[in-house]
Amino acid sequence: MRSDGRRIDEIRPVKVDRGCLKHAEGSLLIEIGETRVLCTATVEEKVPLFLRATGQGWVTAEYGMLPRATKTRTPRESVTGRASGRTFEIQRLIGRSLRAVIDLTRLGERTVLIDCDVIQADGGTRTTAITGAFVAMADALSRLQENDQLHGPLLKDFVAGVSVGHVNGELLLDLNYAEDSMAEVDMNIVMTGSGKFVEVQGTAEEVPFNKVELDQMLDLATRGIDQLVGLQRQLLGAEINGLKM
Amino acid sequence: MRSDGRRIDEIRPVKVDRGCLKHAEGSLLIEIGETRVLCTATVEEKVPLFLRATGQGWVTAEYGMLPRATKTRTPRESVTGRASGRTFEIQRLIGRSLRAVIDLTRLGERTVLIDCDVIQADGGTRTTAITGAFVAMADALSRLQENDQLHGPLLKDFVAGVSVGHVNGELLLDLNYAEDSMAEVDMNIVMTGSGKFVEVQGTAEEVPFNKVELDQMLDLATRGIDQLVGLQRQLLGAEINGLKM
Amino acid sequence: MRSDGRRIDEIRPVKVDRGCLKHAEGSLLIEIGETRVLCTATVEEKVPLFLRATGQGWVTAEYGMLPRATKTRTPRESVTGRASGRTFEIQRLIGRSLRAVIDLTRLGERTVLIDCDVIQADGGTRTTAITGAFVAMADALSRLQENDQLHGPLLKDFVAGVSVGHVNGELLLDLNYAEDSMAEVDMNIVMTGSGKFVEVQGTAEEVPFNKVELDQMLDLATRGIDQLVGLQRQLLGAEINGLKM
Amino acid sequence: MRSDGRRIDEIRPVKVDRGCLKHAEGSLLIEIGETRVLCTATVEEKVPLFLRATGQGWVTAEYGMLPRATKTRTPRESVTGRASGRTFEIQRLIGRSLRAVIDLTRLGERTVLIDCDVIQADGGTRTTAITGAFVAMADALSRLQENDQLHGPLLKDFVAGVSVGHVNGELLLDLNYAEDSMAEVDMNIVMTGSGKFVEVQGTAEEVPFNKVELDQMLDLATRGIDQLVGLQRQLLGAEINGLKM
Amino acid sequence: MRSDGRRIDEIRPVKVDRGCLKHAEGSLLIEIGETRVLCTATVEEKVPLFLRATGQGWVTAEYGMLPRATKTRTPRESVTGRASGRTFEIQRLIGRSLRAVIDLTRLGERTVLIDCDVIQADGGTRTTAITGAFVAMADALSRLQENDQLHGPLLKDFVAGVSVGHVNGELLLDLNYAEDSMAEVDMNIVMTGSGKFVEVQGTAEEVPFNKVELDQMLDLATRGIDQLVGLQRQLLGAEINGLKM
Amino acid sequence: MRSDGRRIDEIRPVKVDRGCLKHAEGSLLIEIGETRVLCTATVEEKVPLFLRATGQGWVTAEYGMLPRATKTRTPRESVTGRASGRTFEIQRLIGRSLRAVIDLTRLGERTVLIDCDVIQADGGTRTTAITGAFVAMADALSRLQENDQLHGPLLKDFVAGVSVGHVNGELLLDLNYAEDSMAEVDMNIVMTGSGKFVEVQGTAEEVPFNKVELDQMLDLATRGIDQLVGLQRQLLGAEINGLKM
Repeated sequence: MRSDGRRIDEIRPVKVDRGCLKHAEGSLLIEIGETRVLCTATVEEKVPLFLRATGQGWVTAEYGMLPRATKTRTPRESVTGRASGRTFEIQRLIGRSLRAVIDLTRLGERTVLIDCDVIQADGGTRTTAITGAFVAMADALSRLQENDQLHGPLLKDFVAGVSVGHVNGELLLDLNYAEDSMAEVDMNIVMTGSGKFVEVQGTAEEVPFNKVELDQMLDLATRGIDQLVGLQRQLLGAEINGLKM
Repeated sequence: MRSDGRRIDEIRPVKVDRGCLKHAEGSLLIEIGETRVLCTATVEEKVPLFLRATGQGWVTAEYGMLPRATKTRTPRESVTGRASGRTFEIQRLIGRSLRAVIDLTRLGERTVLIDCDVIQADGGTRTTAITGAFVAMADALSRLQENDQLHGPLLKDFVAGVSVGHVNGELLLDLNYAEDSMAEVDMNIVMTGSGKFVEVQGTAEEVPFNKVELDQMLDLATRGIDQLVGLQRQLLGAEINGLKM
Repeated sequence: MRSDGRRIDEIRPVKVDRGCLKHAEGSLLIEIGETRVLCTATVEEKVPLFLRATGQGWVTAEYGMLPRATKTRTPRESVTGRASGRTFEIQRLIGRSLRAVIDLTRLGERTVLIDCDVIQADGGTRTTAITGAFVAMADALSRLQENDQLHGPLLKDFVAGVSVGHVNGELLLDLNYAEDSMAEVDMNIVMTGSGKFVEVQGTAEEVPFNKVELDQMLDLATRGIDQLVGLQRQLLGAEINGLKM
Repeated sequence: MRSDGRRIDEIRPVKVDRGCLKHAEGSLLIEIGETRVLCTATVEEKVPLFLRATGQGWVTAEYGMLPRATKTRTPRESVTGRASGRTFEIQRLIGRSLRAVIDLTRLGERTVLIDCDVIQADGGTRTTAITGAFVAMADALSRLQENDQLHGPLLKDFVAGVSVGHVNGELLLDLNYAEDSMAEVDMNIVMTGSGKFVEVQGTAEEVPFNKVELDQMLDLATRGIDQLVGLQRQLLGAEINGLKM
Repeated sequence: MRSDGRRIDEIRPVKVDRGCLKHAEGSLLIEIGETRVLCTATVEEKVPLFLRATGQGWVTAEYGMLPRATKTRTPRESVTGRASGRTFEIQRLIGRSLRAVIDLTRLGERTVLIDCDVIQADGGTRTTAITGAFVAMADALSRLQENDQLHGPLLKDFVAGVSVGHVNGELLLDLNYAEDSMAEVDMNIVMTGSGKFVEVQGTAEEVPFNKVELDQMLDLATRGIDQLVGLQRQLLGAEINGLKM
Repeated sequence: MRSDGRRIDEIRPVKVDRGCLKHAEGSLLIEIGETRVLCTATVEEKVPLFLRATGQGWVTAEYGMLPRATKTRTPRESVTGRASGRTFEIQRLIGRSLRAVIDLTRLGERTVLIDCDVIQADGGTRTTAITGAFVAMADALSRLQENDQLHGPLLKDFVAGVSVGHVNGELLLDLNYAEDSMAEVDMNIVMTGSGKFVEVQGTAEEVPFNKVELDQMLDLATRGIDQLVGLQRQLLGAEINGLKM
C-alpha cells in the first residue's frame, strides 16, 4: 500500500544497539526504518544558573545531524557558525519531553545532558531521538543508582514520540522522508507509557485541518506510541524497576 | 475570578492602531491586555533561492523583543550575537501560520517579510503577533493591488492565534504572564476564519494531559479565535473584498 | 521656507509619552517631528569590572533601530550577528552625554542602563535619544530615591542634544531626514541646561567649513537646546527638585 | 607487553563497514582498536574560487568529533561557535594527504568533499580518518566512472596514515589514547602504497629527539602503513583497477 | 613644563619612514613622539555596492592595534571575534577625513583601502593615523598616475589631524597618553591645508566646557595642523604637483 | 644560482632590532631576507584552567599578519570574524616549540604569552617567528629574574626554526616566497641548540618523497639551524647565562 509496503497504521521496524559507546554513561543507536540516531546521556554534577542552590536537577538535550545523514550534504553547523532554528526547536522539544517523566527533585543538583546525533535521516528523526534518548537516560540513571549516588524512584513514566501525517488524502503513521515531504499536515506526538500527551505539535503545511482529522491523527499516534513504549518496557525491564518506577 | 477579573473563557481587551508607521507597506500596533506588539509587513521583489524561477512567492517573519518589554531586562540578541532558540521557534511559527492562508502562486516572485516586535510582554506574544501580522500583511497586499501590481484573490482565509492553558486545575483562555508562568499545560492554537486548525502546539510543562483535557482546550481556543477573527473582519471589511476573498 | 514649513532656526514639534511602559524603572516615548524613540532606564545593582570596589556607579546605553523605522527595511543586527559601527558610535555618545551630568560617586555601585530604540526615523535619532534618555534616567533615579536607596543630589544639570547643518548654502537647525541627506556639513551638539558643551561633533560631508560657519552653527544649536531643556524642566519640575538639583 | 597485549610494532585490529550509509557517494565506518570514524565522500560539481575555469578539481575534508566520542563530553563546535585549532589542523592534513594521490586534472571541475566524524576516540583519530577516507573517496570516484562522468585513471597510489611515539623510553607503533597521553614524542606519518612519504609530523611533547630515534620511528611507521595499505588493496581490488591505476 | 618638557602649544617630534613596505601601493611608518602607526594604501578595482555603475570611487579605512602597542596587552579583535566600538568609530573617522579631500568622481570605480595599524600607542593614534594615511594615499594615487590609470588632479587639499585637551586646568596641544588619561576635555580636530575644518570632535569627559574654551582649543589645534601639513607638503613636494593639485 | 643569488644551502641575511617596543616585557623585530616579524613576550600572573593549582606555568602564542604584509591585501581576521585554520596551526606550532625548551615547573603559575605579527611576508614566517620569539621570551624571563620574581635556570636550550624544500628538482634551504610557492615538498624544522628535533613537519605538495630525500632535507635544515642558534647565542650571551643555562 505505502511505498515501503507498510499498512497506514504500521510503524517501521525498530532496532536498538544499547551501550554501543564505551565512554558515555548511557548510549544507544536506535534505528527506525532507515532513520538512525545515536543517543547518549551524560551526567554532570552541576545545574544551570537558575537552579543553583535549589536542590533540583535538570535534563537538557542537544541535537545534531552528520553532513551525509541527508541525501544532499548538509553543511556543518560548526562551519555556518550557528545552530539553525530547526535544531533549536528540536533540542528544546527533546529536553521538555524527557523532563516530563523525571522527578527533578530526586535527581539532586545534577544535569542529564542528552546528545542525539542523526547518522542517517529518513523521516521522524526528532521522535526517534526522544524514543531512544529515554532509554539512554534511564541507563545513565541506573548507573548512578548502582554507584549509590541516587536513591528512590526517579522516572515517573515512559515517554516516546511518533509522527503522523495527512498524505495524499490519507492519514499515515510514522512517516518516512518521502511521505513527510508530500504531507499536507504533519504532526509530532510525544506520549507517556500511561497514554497521556506530553507534546502535541500539528502543522498544516498547506491545507488546514478540522477537528475530526485531528482526532484521527491523535488516535493513530496513540497506537504507534503503544508499540514503542512496549519496546522500551522490554529493554528496560528489571532496571526500570531498579529505579522503583 | 481570574486575577484580572476575567471569566475563564474570556479573552483580554484588544486594541489596534492600524497604519501607525509611515514607512512600512503595512503596519499596526496590536494590544491584547498589556501585551503590545508592533507588526509590520514589507514587500520585497525577490524570493529565497529555492523559489527562484518558480513564479511563486514567499512569506517569512522575524520576531524581536525590546529589552524592557519584560520585567527584568532581556539582553539584546544583537549583543549576545545570535537569536535564541525561542526566537527561531516563534518566527518559524508566524511564517508558517501566514503562509497557510495566502495563495503564494498568485503573489508572484515576491516576499512578504513580517516583523513582529514586542514592545511590552504580558503573555501570548506569539499569538498576538500572528493575529496582528495577518492584518498588516493584508494591508500591504491591498497597497500592491492598488498599484496594479497584483491581480485576483490572494488571501484564502483569515488566521489568528490564541493561547489556552491548564492553571491550578482550571482551563483558561488567553493566559496573561502570571497565569502562563504557573501553567501545567500550555497550548498555542492557530486557526483560520472557517474554524480549521493551522497549528496546534500543546506542551505539558509538568503534568501530562489526557484526551478529554485536550478536547476542552481546543474548544476554548476555538471560542477565542472566533472573537479575534471577528475583529479582523471588522478591520479589513471592504479591503479584504478588494482582494476578492 | 523649509520643506515642512519651519523657519531655519526652528525645531520640530516635540511630544513625550512619559511612563509608557509598565516594567521599566523609567520609560518614555519621545517624538520630535516624525522621529520616534522609545527610551527606557534600567537600574542594575552591579557595575562593570573596572569599577568594582570603587563605590562608584556607571551609566551606559544601547541603541537599536526597528527594521521598519526606515524607508527601506534595515536588517536586524541580531541577524547580521553584530552591531554596526554606527550603532557603536551612537551608544557611546549617549552614554558619555548622560555621564557628564550625573554624580557617579553618589550613585553607588549601580549601573543605569539606558535603552534607546528607534520606532520611526526621520533625522536626529541620536540627539532625540539623548534628550529623551535624560528624562527616563531622572525618573528611574527618582524611583530609587522614593525607595530610600539613594540620598542627596545626583543630577548636576540637564542635558539635551540637537543637530544643525549646512544644507544648500543655508544653516538649518534640527534637520529632518530629507535635509540631513543633502547636508554638506552635519553637526550634533550636546549641551547642558547651563549652556555648556558636552559633545561637539561636526563633520564635513563634502565641503570643509570655516570658523565663522562653525560659530554660526554652534549658535543655532544653543537656541535649539534651550527649548529642549525648557521642555525637560517642565516635565521634571518637582521631581528633579526631589533630586535636590 | 603493552597494556592491550600488543607487541611494540603491532597495529590494532582493523574493521571496515563499507557502504554503511545510503545517501553518500562513498561511505565507510572504520574501526582501529576502539577508535571508530565514519568517513563519507561527497562529489560536488563545483570547485573553490581559485580553481574556477582551470579545468582542475579539488579534494577537501572536514573533521568532527561527536560529543561522547571522548571520556569527558566534548562541547559541540556548533555551540562554541567555531571549530578549534586542532580541528582545522586535522582537516587540512586529511585534505593534503588525499590530494597527494589523485590526479586533480583528470577529476575535472569537481570537488570531492570528505567528512570524517569520530564516533569513538581512542587515539589515532586523524590517521584512522585518512586511511578510511581514501577508500570512501575511491568508492565515490568509482561511482562517477560507472556513470560515465569520469574517464581514465584518477588515483595515482594508495595512501594511509599511522602514529608512532616514544612512550616511557620505548618506541611504539599505533598508539592508543592511554599511550598517546604519556608519549614524550608523538609522530603522525602518512605514506603511499609505494612507500613514499606524504606527511611527516613529529612533535617532541617534552623531550626533543635525535636523528637515530627519528629513523627508528619512521621505520616502525613504514611497517604499519604496509599493513594498512594491504587492507585497502584487499578492499578495493578490482575497483581500483577499474580506475586503471 | 609638560612631563616631556614640551611647551603647551608644541607638538611632539614627527618622523616618517616612507615606502617602508614592498608590497603596498603606498606605505609609511609615522612616529609622533612615541606613538607609531603603520599606514598603507591599497587600490582595488571595485567599489561598494551603493556606488556600482556610478563611475565614482571610494576611500575606506581599517584600524588595528597590535597586542603590545599598549602598556597592558590588548586582546586581538580576531580572538574576541569582533572589532570594538572604539575601532569602528576610528575607522569611520579616518575614512571620512580622507574622502573630504579627494575628488571621488575622478578616481573612477576604484576603492582606496587604507590600513592603519598601531605598532606603539602613546596618545593621538587616530589623528596620527589620519596624518600618515594622507601621504600613503597620495603615494598610491601617484603610482596609478604613473601607470596612466588616472588623469588630472585628484587631491583637493592636504588633510591632517591633531588632538587638544584640557588637562589640570591647562589647554594642551597634541596630548600624550599620560596627559590624555587625565584630560577633562578631549578634542580631535581634522583640518585641511587651507585651514578649514573636516572634523571637530570634542568630548567633555567630566566637566562641560564653554564657548571661550572651545575657541582656544580650536586655535591651538590650528597651530598644530599647520605644522603637520607643512611636513606633508615637504614630503609630497613634486609628486602632489604631479596630481596637479 | 637561486633567484636572489644565494647558494642552495645558504640562509638569507638576518637582522634583529631587539627591545624595539617600550611596553612589552620582551620585544624584537626580526628580519630574515624580506620577511619581517614583530615578536613580543608578555608575562601574565595566571595560567590556563587545566594548570591551576599545579604550581606549573605555560607558554602560548598568537600569530597575526598585517593586511599588507602580503602582495595582495589579506583581509583582517577581526573582520572575517575568526582566525583561519592556517593561523591556528602556526600559533600551536610556535607555542609547542617554545615549551620544549623551558622548564615550566620553575616558571611558577605564570603564562608567557608570545605575539608574532608579520609586518612583511616573503616565505618562512612561521620559522622566523619561532627564531625571534625565543629571544623575546628569554628577554622577558631575564626581566623577571632581575625583579627577583624567578630563581634558577629556566631555559633548557636554544630553539630555532627553518624551512627546507624541494624546488624544481633541487633541495633548497630557507625558501623565500617565490621558491616556496613552486615547492614540490615543503618542510619546516624546529631544532634545539644541541641539535635535537622539536618539530619535523614535511608535506608533499604534489610529489611524495622518499627516505633519501628526507634525510638530505633534515641535513640541510640542521645546517641552517646552526647558524640561527649561533646568532641567538651572540645576542643573549651573558643574559642567558644569567638564566644559568
